[in-house]
Amino acid sequence: MSSSATPSRPSVNALAAPLVEALAADAARLRLAVTRAPDGARLIDAGAGARGSIEAGRRIAEICLGGLGTVTLSPAGPLEAWPFTLTVHSTDPVLACLGSQYAGWNLADEEGDSGFFALGSGPGRAAAAVESLFEELAYRDEASRIALVLESGSPPPASVTAKVAAAAGIRPADVTFVYAPTQSLAGATQVVARVLEVALHKAHSVGFDLDAIVDGIGAAPVSPPHPDFIQAMGRTNDAIIYGGRVQLFVEADDADAKGLAEALPSTTSRDHGAPFAEIFSRFNGDFYAIDKHLFSPAEVVVTSLRSGHSHRAGRLVPELVARSFA
Amino acid sequence: MSSSATPSRPSVNALAAPLVEALAADAARLRLAVTRAPDGARLIDAGAGARGSIEAGRRIAEICLGGLGTVTLSPAGPLEAWPFTLTVHSTDPVLACLGSQYAGWNLADEEGDSGFFALGSGPGRAAAAVESLFEELAYRDEASRIALVLESGSPPPASVTAKVAAAAGIRPADVTFVYAPTQSLAGATQVVARVLEVALHKAHSVGFDLDAIVDGIGAAPVSPPHPDFIQAMGRTNDAIIYGGRVQLFVEADDADAKGLAEALPSTTSRDHGAPFAEIFSRFNGDFYAIDKHLFSPAEVVVTSLRSGHSHRAGRLVPELVARSFA
Amino acid sequence: MSSSATPSRPSVNALAAPLVEALAADAARLRLAVTRAPDGARLIDAGAGARGSIEAGRRIAEICLGGLGTVTLSPAGPLEAWPFTLTVHSTDPVLACLGSQYAGWNLADEEGDSGFFALGSGPGRAAAAVESLFEELAYRDEASRIALVLESGSPPPASVTAKVAAAAGIRPADVTFVYAPTQSLAGATQVVARVLEVALHKAHSVGFDLDAIVDGIGAAPVSPPHPDFIQAMGRTNDAIIYGGRVQLFVEADDADAKGLAEALPSTTSRDHGAPFAEIFSRFNGDFYAIDKHLFSPAEVVVTSLRSGHSHRAGRLVPELVARSFA
Repeated sequence: MSSSATPSRPSVNALAAPLVEALAADAARLRLAVTRAPDGARLIDAGAGARGSIEAGRRIAEICLGGLGTVTLSPAGPLEAWPFTLTVHSTDPVLACLGSQYAGWNLADEEGDSGFFALGSGPGRAAAAVESLFEELAYRDEASRIALVLESGSPPPASVTAKVAAAAGIRPADVTFVYAPTQSLAGATQVVARVLEVALHKAHSVGFDLDAIVDGIGAAPVSPPHPDFIQAMGRTNDAIIYGGRVQLFVEADDADAKGLAEALPSTTSRDHGAPFAEIFSRFNGDFYAIDKHLFSPAEVVVTSLRSGHSHRAGRLVPELVARSFA
Repeated sequence: MSSSATPSRPSVNALAAPLVEALAADAARLRLAVTRAPDGARLIDAGAGARGSIEAGRRIAEICLGGLGTVTLSPAGPLEAWPFTLTVHSTDPVLACLGSQYAGWNLADEEGDSGFFALGSGPGRAAAAVESLFEELAYRDEASRIALVLESGSPPPASVTAKVAAAAGIRPADVTFVYAPTQSLAGATQVVARVLEVALHKAHSVGFDLDAIVDGIGAAPVSPPHPDFIQAMGRTNDAIIYGGRVQLFVEADDADAKGLAEALPSTTSRDHGAPFAEIFSRFNGDFYAIDKHLFSPAEVVVTSLRSGHSHRAGRLVPELVARSFA
Repeated sequence: MSSSATPSRPSVNALAAPLVEALAADAARLRLAVTRAPDGARLIDAGAGARGSIEAGRRIAEICLGGLGTVTLSPAGPLEAWPFTLTVHSTDPVLACLGSQYAGWNLADEEGDSGFFALGSGPGRAAAAVESLFEELAYRDEASRIALVLESGSPPPASVTAKVAAAAGIRPADVTFVYAPTQSLAGATQVVARVLEVALHKAHSVGFDLDAIVDGIGAAPVSPPHPDFIQAMGRTNDAIIYGGRVQLFVEADDADAKGLAEALPSTTSRDHGAPFAEIFSRFNGDFYAIDKHLFSPAEVVVTSLRSGHSHRAGRLVPELVARSFA
């Protein structure tokens, strides 16, 4: 009758699998193109040659979360002029966001000569577990089929698929790649749906105990796509940096919860205060020269489950969202 | 490996069929009455003799969209005093709204003497394809079972069912009619959920290239039913005309996107500025004397996917919604 | 062809059963602990020893509603500082809220010596139907398996399970108890999701004809848990009393609708004006000394389906929510 038994940890690939199959099955209505590469890998184009859709992006985001969260569209949020809002909620934000959604797997083509580069996100990462992050999470997902999501305008070459399959210990035919460029409706949508993930990532980078993060909700405005990659990337970042809100619920004392709240928001960054594309250009397009503290939600609330107190920091900057989205 | 293959177009009747079956199966909890006419047609009363519900109206609206869109209820929108809001989102707004949801099929009883009149909406229209609109859409849906939605207080007579079945090339027993008067909860709800459709219809009527409309979201307040037909119709119209917002995403240049934005909202109409029921009375109840430009959302944003720019026009008029809904 | 046939009333236990099975099946991802008591009763711990989650609370609330309603999470509501909002919608608010969700079954351990006390809520109440309320509702649900929800930090002892099983005429092994204390994420969430139910309960207590209540929507902010029971209870009450909104649709004349609107909101209470925990302490922790009119939403709209008019009363008090949640 004891309730102290820890439930076994969920399999992000198993939970995402029905979502991936539904995405492929609904290709016509979501305007996706589903093909097989010569090596058997399934390729779901959600915004390169195919038109895709905001709904495809929403569903791709739920795949990214490893079936451990929901992404919903609402008619109102804190921004008057950009009311349509995505809400991300996960019951297990650490596993959903860091163990699955985070775009942390370098899938550069090192074997071939394609010049292909993308960062892999989604549940397939946890099956390969080549990133050191998985040691910290003490999580590896045994999976016979995996899915990876790529913010990319082209599918991976065979050499990358081979690397992925080998790392996960499966055949190329058991890998599904879903790809869409940032400039597309689906691409922009699935990136904005990272509003909770960037908070988790920053919590990790400032050394907060991940085991203490119990629940989390995030929201950010639907970002209008832009045909130029830099502008498109800028907008999805600005949706989060100047328009995103997150609430985390943590098993931590007030001092730690307050410290986390104060460390999290984008206002803590030296580079806060201009649309992302302008900052990017100011640093001559050197992404890594930009202060990494900028990549976080505008406003955060961290609720200590130990004290019951909520700690707030940061602020929305609607006028910068408006300048970015114009 | 090419992703250029155009997916075949979805079947609105096939996609809606499980939603129709679920509606019938859930009749008790949605307070619908499901019967069979002597000719075998299935009749789902959602607000005439049956009480129906807002949820029934929401689900009827998703049937109207041919399974190509969602309708959701949210606790907040732009109107302080009428916060409960319906959001309509479709990945294929042209097919969903014009090919299915638009109430474009004249189902007057020309054979019999019933005096029955209703405009048919929903996926069954695309199976019959008797409206010239379907030539423009280059779409006809082969279907062995169809559903039509009627904003009506009574079911169609056998002569109308016969006309519908013949046009779709099926038996009367394979036709489902869902009907609810404007005065009912379900009727009011499914009409307000046309906020995106009226934008599409107006885009069509001003000659905008429908192929260029890629995605769309709309929102409007839940309209309180009124027992008087004119007042009920007035409220559902006012919910859209003075309280509705739409964002469209178009594959078009800025000039065309801007032109569409400026042509779309209800503010472009000579008759804008009073609750619809007052306008209707001013024209002595002659619906066709009212400026047709009035039938569109209050506020629109049109985002050009070619330039990345968003174009706005129109404005919400909360005080007219309040006067109408009082 | 008549639509006057009254549909048979839905079975709240049958409708909730798949939700209960899904809750148990998803235990790992919702962080619940599912065990069997020696007598065979299934115990789902959603926040005592198990961590639980807001999503678990949301799903428990849908179980409480007997499958006759939805509970959704949105990113915005009327409170600037506490934007994440729960919306409750039921097509049959009387049966969903009073026949199932209301915590009306006294499950004190009268046989054993455990000192266990909880108020049972959820569809199992309608199978036992020991409360006099069920005579008024003229409803009893024949069910072979039942579920009860307990706002409690511990599972019921065998003597309570025996009482429940006997009252419902089933074996203990066919009873599922879902329990979570008010201090937990799931507990706080499922209590706030009673915003519509408290309006129904007050309508009942002021003698309004329940048959006239046709539809209803409610919304209230997600309440941050507090480790202290009094503070936790205070917050969930304040979410409703100072932050909750409800709209009811009634088959009643204006006078009755207006009367109901004026009687419903918490502003009618002598004790309105301070966070609940302060009021509780003012009455030395005597719950029953507190004016029962306080337990209702802050703001209500009652729409008469006979006249079409909407009647408003009450007001939100965001500063009291803020003081309570701080």
